[in-house]
Amino acid sequence: MDVYPIILAQTKFIQREDLTYPFEERGLQFGDGVYEVIRIYDGKYYLLEEHINRLFRSAEAIKLELPFSKEEITDLLLEMLNKNSMTRDGKLYMQASRGSAPRDHVFPGDVPANVYAYMQDLPRKTDLLKTGVSTITQEDTRWKKCYIKSLNLLPNVLAKQEAKENGCYEAILHEDGLVTECSSSNIYLVKDGNIYTHPATHRILHGCVRMRVEKFAEDLKIPFVEEAFKLESISDADEMFLSSSTSEVLPVTKVDNTVIADGNVGKITRQLQEAYEQDANIAKHVV
Amino acid sequence: MDVYPIILAQTKFIQREDLTYPFEERGLQFGDGVYEVIRIYDGKYYLLEEHINRLFRSAEAIKLELPFSKEEITDLLLEMLNKNSMTRDGKLYMQASRGSAPRDHVFPGDVPANVYAYMQDLPRKTDLLKTGVSTITQEDTRWKKCYIKSLNLLPNVLAKQEAKENGCYEAILHEDGLVTECSSSNIYLVKDGNIYTHPATHRILHGCVRMRVEKFAEDLKIPFVEEAFKLESISDADEMFLSSSTSEVLPVTKVDNTVIADGNVGKITRQLQEAYEQDANIAKHVV
Repeated sequence: MDVYPIILAQTKFIQREDLTYPFEERGLQFGDGVYEVIRIYDGKYYLLEEHINRLFRSAEAIKLELPFSKEEITDLLLEMLNKNSMTRDGKLYMQASRGSAPRDHVFPGDVPANVYAYMQDLPRKTDLLKTGVSTITQEDTRWKKCYIKSLNLLPNVLAKQEAKENGCYEAILHEDGLVTECSSSNIYLVKDGNIYTHPATHRILHGCVRMRVEKFAEDLKIPFVEEAFKLESISDADEMFLSSSTSEVLPVTKVDNTVIADGNVGKITRQLQEAYEQDANIAKHVV
Repeated sequence: MDVYPIILAQTKFIQREDLTYPFEERGLQFGDGVYEVIRIYDGKYYLLEEHINRLFRSAEAIKLELPFSKEEITDLLLEMLNKNSMTRDGKLYMQASRGSAPRDHVFPGDVPANVYAYMQDLPRKTDLLKTGVSTITQEDTRWKKCYIKSLNLLPNVLAKQEAKENGCYEAILHEDGLVTECSSSNIYLVKDGNIYTHPATHRILHGCVRMRVEKFAEDLKIPFVEEAFKLESISDADEMFLSSSTSEVLPVTKVDNTVIADGNVGKITRQLQEAYEQDANIAKHVV
């Protein structure tokens, strides 16, 4: 899996190996920053504007001033594709922290945000998109402002690791039995022709792909019900799937010991996967 | 305020300027690590063993393997005082993250933890210890495992900044009206001769100074009641104070617009401050 040599540091392009950080850095000591992961297909960003908009919303929510406008960062990210001659499927990772400063909870004055972005290859998960994945359920231990895409990801890390140790792809998080989202994706349950998912409150990240799923459902005239479903509804689900920029629309065929609909990928999930491939203008792999 | 040149990186002593981190570091990208702040008086650590024990408890709670035993890190930290000829009042900051690795929520295999520690001067807050401080109240938005001293400190940062912008020293956090702790200290309310504070559950950090306050109260035959108090009890409080390694036992004389006991520092707070100075074997400043 290729890693591309030209990265963005602040608003300059430099070589990967030339960027290091001092140990008194607010991302490193407080997780005091925000980030985005943007999908790349055939060397083009998917949902770039949506991700940039969310980056600015997250930054504003933590009162972090970004050293560029939306237009400027858009141009820089587009230029970065060219600088790396990126023409494949990949992802861009980008973060902004509150800069390097002596450790103090209080914001440092007049210190510029530390921003960097880099890209790497990321082949589509063609097999999993066809077969679906297994998941576990875990208590949602995250903070109360999950709509902010912040660097405070320890609960997500611990949940994802637990999933992996159980031979699963993802951990479905719940709060007192109400399903919120997964460790790094949104989650949906299909029942009697309706799609159920947690409303876009402070309790979940408002996924860029989630927004598209809502639009696809609308186009397909499938009711998209923003209503949290219960853990005990899972055993009765007709279909389940998750979504994220790296996972796309991914069928969930098992939750803990419960096999969803005999392990077959459902019709609505397939329709949404097709809509995704059409929207992202990518090869049809799933059917 | 002096910063000392010799720091610990992994288990070696090096110069401050020689330690930098790559941008793919799990502390920096996930806050995937734990830390400690240890008080130094006259060149000696206070509560060193308690802090080391908590570091190991935090690391275990996030399944992080530390590259040393408790004995080894104790020796290294003691040696670090000598290497820096540290004889003053200060603090040591130390953190351990899950290492440098390509970004993935799942733990990286076989990557050593990144550990570093550095020290700096920190004069006692002699004026504030005498007069007390003002505070604000804020909703506790932290995650559900606050007993782990993790690098996920964004909610604490935001609360402390809010306090500062309101001209206050600390933010008192509450969950549905029940007081948990402050952004970087434990909090106590005195009423009718009893000390009330949130029990040491997963909702609060189990402060090393908090443990000593419990002991001081026991020695002084003051009932130490581990029972969360309500926001509305604050207006009726006889005394309030907070505690932490950098703040010691610090009187709280104002909470939002409520002046506690006419703004005077109470008798029990003073007794605990005296007990603290005796326990830490430091100069008597508070009375």
